[in-house]
Amino acid sequence: MPGDAPARQPGGRAAIAARLPDAPRRPSLAVLLEHLHVSGSLTRAELTARMGVNRSTVAGLVAELVALGVAVEERPSRASGAAGRPSLVVSSVPSRLQVVAAEVAVDNTAVALFRLGGSLTARRTAPTPHGPGSGRRIVELLRGLVDDLGTGPDAAGVVGLGVAVPGAVRRSDGCVRFAPNLGWTDEPFGHLLAQAMPHLHVVVGNDADLGVLAEHRRGVARGVEDVVFVSGDVGVGGGLVMGGMPLLGAGGYAGELGHMTVRPDGLPCRCGARGCWETEVGAPAIARAVSAPGQRGEELAAAVRSARARGRGEALAAVAHSLGVGIGNVVNLINPQLVVLGGVLQEVLRSAGDEVRAGLDATALRAAAEQVRLALPGLGADAVLAGAAEVVWQELLADPLPLLQATA
Amino acid sequence: MPGDAPARQPGGRAAIAARLPDAPRRPSLAVLLEHLHVSGSLTRAELTARMGVNRSTVAGLVAELVALGVAVEERPSRASGAAGRPSLVVSSVPSRLQVVAAEVAVDNTAVALFRLGGSLTARRTAPTPHGPGSGRRIVELLRGLVDDLGTGPDAAGVVGLGVAVPGAVRRSDGCVRFAPNLGWTDEPFGHLLAQAMPHLHVVVGNDADLGVLAEHRRGVARGVEDVVFVSGDVGVGGGLVMGGMPLLGAGGYAGELGHMTVRPDGLPCRCGARGCWETEVGAPAIARAVSAPGQRGEELAAAVRSARARGRGEALAAVAHSLGVGIGNVVNLINPQLVVLGGVLQEVLRSAGDEVRAGLDATALRAAAEQVRLALPGLGADAVLAGAAEVVWQELLADPLPLLQATA
Repeated sequence: MPGDAPARQPGGRAAIAARLPDAPRRPSLAVLLEHLHVSGSLTRAELTARMGVNRSTVAGLVAELVALGVAVEERPSRASGAAGRPSLVVSSVPSRLQVVAAEVAVDNTAVALFRLGGSLTARRTAPTPHGPGSGRRIVELLRGLVDDLGTGPDAAGVVGLGVAVPGAVRRSDGCVRFAPNLGWTDEPFGHLLAQAMPHLHVVVGNDADLGVLAEHRRGVARGVEDVVFVSGDVGVGGGLVMGGMPLLGAGGYAGELGHMTVRPDGLPCRCGARGCWETEVGAPAIARAVSAPGQRGEELAAAVRSARARGRGEALAAVAHSLGVGIGNVVNLINPQLVVLGGVLQEVLRSAGDEVRAGLDATALRAAAEQVRLALPGLGADAVLAGAAEVVWQELLADPLPLLQATA
Repeated sequence: MPGDAPARQPGGRAAIAARLPDAPRRPSLAVLLEHLHVSGSLTRAELTARMGVNRSTVAGLVAELVALGVAVEERPSRASGAAGRPSLVVSSVPSRLQVVAAEVAVDNTAVALFRLGGSLTARRTAPTPHGPGSGRRIVELLRGLVDDLGTGPDAAGVVGLGVAVPGAVRRSDGCVRFAPNLGWTDEPFGHLLAQAMPHLHVVVGNDADLGVLAEHRRGVARGVEDVVFVSGDVGVGGGLVMGGMPLLGAGGYAGELGHMTVRPDGLPCRCGARGCWETEVGAPAIARAVSAPGQRGEELAAAVRSARARGRGEALAAVAHSLGVGIGNVVNLINPQLVVLGGVLQEVLRSAGDEVRAGLDATALRAAAEQVRLALPGLGADAVLAGAAEVVWQELLADPLPLLQATA
């Protein structure tokens, strides 16, 4: 039957309507609270317009949320010259509910606390464990970091945990099917997390899938229907939003851009194949190109910036061209309006943007190429972490009443 | 804003609900008629269940459609042993409305008449004109073929024309942005067709986009949410259905699989780039591989079948492997459940399916690879033509009342 599988994550109101089998019956309370979460504050008039319901319905729903302590309402100072009584402004109460977001990257693991409405209030970072049993050790690390943020079992208002990993994640249960750069195959990560932190609603997602979600809801892709987010660390991954909705594929594995074969006789890849795109534009390839072998993160970004001055301009241009060719393949396939480059690829775009664009234009058909912009993440280095928070909010706010009653 | 652009074509009821800004207000008459069109006959009880409305609402809507002459209702012969009165069976009236579908391929242009409910009743074929002015000449050819089918301006009940072309089509106005194998760039094909046949509702679409639509509604992909259709003629194109909905991209150009760069130092492509997938798996490449240069269509298919016997097994296997690698790239990117191979690629799948699968499995990550099946089109050679009919039905049946009143 047409219609979305439960594992899909919606990207907005229309998307949510599409996902649920009985869209008209979706509780309006959830829709209103999600509007407040994404937009912060809205007037009653704006809510009425966005929800397509009448004023008294909005008033009733707002009163219900106010009684549950999750919204407040106030009359704004009168706008100069505006006639009539200004519409009441409704805002969410940020401290009423919080979620923890975590980003497991190859080098470091970051954990942060996000309040309702999307603000980040605290952050911790530690080196990511590797080797045998790294799944369980990362779970222990996360539990420690979460406790450290003051969000243990007794902390009021902390209701969920979203975790981003650089790998193919089965959304239904958070099993990490394949994360070559963590050395994982079929790691039951979601199960381990839920066991360790039973008081939290746990969601595990692919890093790029969560990056595109955050950029689409709160970043440079806000209001853009068709977006690709390319995460660039040791591995290269992709997150897709098409028609305003996350495109996760049949099992949640869509967006594995890094493993496109772009050169059949190319370098061996950690996935077992040869000539994958990530062997040409992943962090190790970029580091080799700019004569900064083994460097990562901010050091590597600095090496990219200084590449031309150090006589590595041509090698950088070759990487940038290959980046553009791969983006061109993606553009030919799904015709997005915006491609957001994350991780170290941000720096390649800043330092060699013309070459990236030239590779794209040489590969994509003109009709699709002329529609697409390349952009830096609006949320900068926090895009993936913010997405890990958003994916939990989406699940929790889809049916907020039991949650609000339990935490009242 | 989230939500689909008007140019997107829905792929079922949930998809239609998602597309319209006010899903709950979408006229139920349209939903019911679409169910009858896709399914042929349904009992009142089935309609009640599928539409999620009550029995009296269904009874009222059916009465309205019967009065308009587009549906009939009858009591079935009693099912053996079933207790109680059997539910009334509602059927569409196939002759009440018809559309013309056309498929402009590089060699031949086919035109067929489809009745409400999807049955094909008549067909004409002619060689496709090429060279200067081929756009206008194809429009004239189509007008002649349409007249020949007895569907001129005076023919009752023929209400639309859907045309499939092998190129990138701007869905909003039917402009063919790029069709290298027809020699077209920015050909205002939709405009010319509408001028020549003002009595018909005209829709122009990419051949593979229409192929996947038909296979999803009536073919091997019925009930499958995430599907790729690969059309293989001189050019190689793709049509995508994701989450039950056609994925057309920002401008309608998604699915240009043939122009993925799969070998940077490969053969020059008619698009101007080098090493595009279609230079390795398009009909000319297949013909070279099986020592049947210049052959097309059924001749080429026969040559593929006899390739092993004629000592061309290894060359065929190489093509099949390259076909699998490209499919693997697509699988990594969007994680479909089903890839349907059309045109001459059907024969490659039949004759060298193991090699295709091996190329796919060597390229796609296991999590995504193990979810995907390869299949032949359920509608065979008629998939694209049937899709050209379906895309017109979708637009016409979205608001059927004015149409039914005008043709009563």
